[in-house]
Amino acid sequence: MSINGVASQSKVLTIDTLNPSIKKVEYAVRGPIVLRAIEIEKELQEGVKKPFTEVIKANIGDAHAMGQTPITFLRQVIALCIYPELLKDNKFPEDAKKRARRILQACAGGSIGAYSASQGIECIRQDVAHYIERRDGGIPSDPGNIFLSTGASDAIVTILKLLMTGEGNTRTGVMIPIPQYPLYSAALAELNGVQVNYYLDEENCWALDVEELRRSLNAARQHCRPRALCIINPGNPTGQVQSKKCIEDVIRFAAEEKLLLLADEVYQDNIYAQGCKFHSFKKVLFEMGPEYSNTVELVSFHSTSKCYMGECGFRGGYMEVCNMDPEVKQQLIKLVSVRLCPPVPGQAMVDVISTPPVEGEPSYEQFVKEKNAVLASLGEKAHLTEDIFNTVPGIKCNPVQGAMYSFPRIEIPDKAVKEAKAKGLAPDMFYCITLLEETGICIVPGSGFGQREGTYHFRMTILPPVDKLKVLLKKLKEFHIKFTNKYS
Amino acid sequence: MSINGVASQSKVLTIDTLNPSIKKVEYAVRGPIVLRAIEIEKELQEGVKKPFTEVIKANIGDAHAMGQTPITFLRQVIALCIYPELLKDNKFPEDAKKRARRILQACAGGSIGAYSASQGIECIRQDVAHYIERRDGGIPSDPGNIFLSTGASDAIVTILKLLMTGEGNTRTGVMIPIPQYPLYSAALAELNGVQVNYYLDEENCWALDVEELRRSLNAARQHCRPRALCIINPGNPTGQVQSKKCIEDVIRFAAEEKLLLLADEVYQDNIYAQGCKFHSFKKVLFEMGPEYSNTVELVSFHSTSKCYMGECGFRGGYMEVCNMDPEVKQQLIKLVSVRLCPPVPGQAMVDVISTPPVEGEPSYEQFVKEKNAVLASLGEKAHLTEDIFNTVPGIKCNPVQGAMYSFPRIEIPDKAVKEAKAKGLAPDMFYCITLLEETGICIVPGSGFGQREGTYHFRMTILPPVDKLKVLLKKLKEFHIKFTNKYS
Repeated sequence: MSINGVASQSKVLTIDTLNPSIKKVEYAVRGPIVLRAIEIEKELQEGVKKPFTEVIKANIGDAHAMGQTPITFLRQVIALCIYPELLKDNKFPEDAKKRARRILQACAGGSIGAYSASQGIECIRQDVAHYIERRDGGIPSDPGNIFLSTGASDAIVTILKLLMTGEGNTRTGVMIPIPQYPLYSAALAELNGVQVNYYLDEENCWALDVEELRRSLNAARQHCRPRALCIINPGNPTGQVQSKKCIEDVIRFAAEEKLLLLADEVYQDNIYAQGCKFHSFKKVLFEMGPEYSNTVELVSFHSTSKCYMGECGFRGGYMEVCNMDPEVKQQLIKLVSVRLCPPVPGQAMVDVISTPPVEGEPSYEQFVKEKNAVLASLGEKAHLTEDIFNTVPGIKCNPVQGAMYSFPRIEIPDKAVKEAKAKGLAPDMFYCITLLEETGICIVPGSGFGQREGTYHFRMTILPPVDKLKVLLKKLKEFHIKFTNKYS
Repeated sequence: MSINGVASQSKVLTIDTLNPSIKKVEYAVRGPIVLRAIEIEKELQEGVKKPFTEVIKANIGDAHAMGQTPITFLRQVIALCIYPELLKDNKFPEDAKKRARRILQACAGGSIGAYSASQGIECIRQDVAHYIERRDGGIPSDPGNIFLSTGASDAIVTILKLLMTGEGNTRTGVMIPIPQYPLYSAALAELNGVQVNYYLDEENCWALDVEELRRSLNAARQHCRPRALCIINPGNPTGQVQSKKCIEDVIRFAAEEKLLLLADEVYQDNIYAQGCKFHSFKKVLFEMGPEYSNTVELVSFHSTSKCYMGECGFRGGYMEVCNMDPEVKQQLIKLVSVRLCPPVPGQAMVDVISTPPVEGEPSYEQFVKEKNAVLASLGEKAHLTEDIFNTVPGIKCNPVQGAMYSFPRIEIPDKAVKEAKAKGLAPDMFYCITLLEETGICIVPGSGFGQREGTYHFRMTILPPVDKLKVLLKKLKEFHIKFTNKYS
C-alpha cells in the first residue's frame, strides 16, 4: 500500500470506487442540458457567433431569475431581522417591524445568527400552525408536528430516509407519479430504495387514477415492500390540480393498503384553471372523519420557493406530520439535530409568509397588490402557453391548471428517433439539445421526469415575462415545424 | 392488508420498522441533556422553584446565543442584498454597498431569492479562492474546486457519501479522532460506514500521534477498508492546535497508506495559545512539493459559524477539493444539484467573510476593532477556563489552544460510577445531568464525543460573557467538590 510505481498514481476516489448509489442518481432539471446551456452563455460572452443572442432558461421553477420582483413586505421583515439597527428607521412600516421583533425575540441572544432549535424556531412553528389552520378552515394544527426545513427537498429526503429498510425483495418501495419531479427518483437512488411508478393519465388531463395505483402496487409487491405513496399536487411537471374526490380516493387507498402518504404541496397557491381549487391532503383527511384522521400517516410539504413568493434562494420550507408514531417523531427530531438547524433567514421567510399583513395594517394594500399581480401574471402565462402549443401540429398540451410548468407531448419523427439512438441520446433529449443549440432555449426533456414508453415530452416553465414568453413560444413553434420537416 | 381489527391500528412507520441506520445515530451536542435543559427552562418560566434562576447553555458553539454581537459590516452587506432599496440609503457605507452590488450582479435576475448554481455563485467561489490564496501565502486556489455548502456539516456529509461502498469486511472505513465532533460518528452511522477510531494523546495536550494512526489503521484493516482520514484542527472538542510538523507527518502517512484527507478547519481563526499558529492542510501539502501536492486527495472545510463571525444561523460554509479525480468531481456536482443550491444569504455571508474591508475603506477600522475584540475576549476566556479548572482537585484541563471548548478530564468516584450504572447512564452523563438539575449549567458529557475507556470528561464552551463564565466556573467548581464528597 506504500507509494511505488503505477499503484501510487491511482486515486482513492475514482469513478470505479465511488459509492455506486451516487452513480445511479440523475437530476435532469440541472442535468447535462443545463450544463451545456451555461457553456453556451459563456461562448456568447466570448463573442462566439450563434443564431441567437441570449440563452433563455425555462428549465427550472426559478421565478426571480426570470424577472419576478420580490414581494416588498417579505424582504423588509428579513432585512430588519438581519440588521436590527433598521428598526429605528422610519422608512420601514410598523407591521414589518412587529414581525421582525417577534422573530428576533425568539432567536437566542436576539440574533438571527444563532442556531435555532433543530425542528425550527418555536414561535415560527406556531405561526405556521395558525397559517395551516386558516388555510384548512379551522382544522387544528399542532406546532409540535411542524418541522422547518432547508427547502421542501430537505424535508422530503429526511422522511424517505426514515422509511428505508430491508434488502432484496423486502426493500422499501415508494410509489411516485410518472411523470415526477426527479428529486424523488434521485433520492430513492441515493438511499437505495425502490422506485414504484404509477402513471398519471395524460388523456385525462394527467389525472391520478386509483385503479392505476392498485395495478402499480400489486406489481411492486412481487419484488419490494411498498410503504409510502407520494402525490404532487398541483402536479410537477404536469400542472394538474387534484379534485377533492380524487384526494379522498387516494386517502382511502392508502388506509386500505397501509401506505404512508407524502403530499408535496409546494405549489398550493399556484392555481389558474377555472373551477380548480387547491384542497390540502390534511384538510380532506380530517373531513373524512376519525376512521381516517386518527390513523392515516400523512406528511405534507411546503416551501418558500414557489407560489407568489418565488424565494428559492432562501431555502425555506416546512413539513407537517400527522399521525406519526411518537417514538418515530423522537427519532426524526434526533436525526434533524445532527445538521443543527435549517437556515434561520429561510425560517424567518417561512414566518412572514405565515403571517402576511392583515387588513388595517400599513403594508396590507401593497402586499395584496403585489401578490395578486404575480399570481394573475402566472395565470395569464399558463393560458397563453397552452393556447399557443395547441396551435402547433405535433404538439399537444394539457391545460396548465396549476404549478409553474407546461409538459406538452411532442411527436418526434421516426428518422429523428433513429438519429437520436445512433447518438446514444433519448429522442426527446436529442430534440431539446437541438433546440438549445439552434435557438438558445433551455427546456428539460420528458425522459428526465419519466413518461410512458414511446411517448415524448418536455417541461417548460411558464415563468418568463409575457413578452419574452411569446417570443419563446413562437421560436419553439417554428423549431418544431422545422425539426419535423427535416426528419420526415 | 385491508382495515380489520388490530392490524389496522399499527402504523406504517414504527420504531420497529424504522430505518435501522437512523436508530444508531447519536448526536450528544443536542442530545437528551439538552432536551432536559429546555424542559427546565420551561419549568422556570412556569414558576417551578429551582436552586437557580436560569439555564446556562454551554453545550454548543453558538456565539450569538451567548451574547456575542454580530460584526456590523457582515450584517450591513447581507441587509443590502436582501432589500436593495437600502442601496440608496446614505447610512450604509460605500464598501458595504460595493460588496452587495457585486453579489447581486451575480444573482440571476439580480435577486438573492433566485437559485444559484448548485456549486455556489461563481463570483463568490472566486472570492473564496482569493481568500484562501491570501491565507496560504499565494498558493493557488481554483474556484472550480470550491463548493459552497449549507454549513460545513453539509459538505462533510456529502464527501462521506461519495466514499461509501462495499459490504461486510469491504465496507468503507473512515478514521476519526477520539474525542471527535459527533457529526462524524452520526454521519457514519447513518451512511452505514465504519467508524475507525484513533485516539488523541491527552497526556500530550491532545496531540495527534502518527504511530497511533498506524495502530488504528492496521487494526481496522482486519474488518473494513479504511479510505479516508479525518482531522479536526483546531480540535473540537479538544482545543489543540496542530504543529506544522505534525501536519506534514499526517500528510505523509495519508500518501503512504492511500487515504483521502478530510481537514475540518472551521476554527481556523480561533487560536489563543502563545506560540500556536494555524497551518492549513492545503498550504502544508503544497509546501511539501509535487510528490505530495499532485497526488494526495484533500478536502478542507470552512464555515461562517465559528471564528470571529459566529453566524451559525446562516448555515454558510464551503469546501475546497484538491486532487479530486475529474470524473468524481462531475459526480459531486451532480449530487449537490439534486438539492438545488445552498442558502444564498449564507453564500453571501461566505463572500463578505472572504472580502473583508481593507485599509482605506470606510468600514475598515470598525471591522478590525470588532473582529479583534471578539477574538481577544475568546482568548481571555480560554485562559480563564483552563486556569480555574486546574485549581479544582479532580479536574484536569489541557490548555485551550484554539477552537471554542474546554474538554477537562474529571475524576468520578467509584460510588458515583456504580450509581450511574444502576440508572443505566454513562458515569459522565450522570455527572452532567446532576450538574444541570442542581445548577442549571448545561454541558455535554465526554461519552458523547468518545474517550478512552475508564476516563471521563465533559465539553464546555468558552462562549459565555466573562462575568457569566466566572460565575459558571465557580459553580462548577463547587459542584465538583460537593459531588466528589457525596460519593467518596
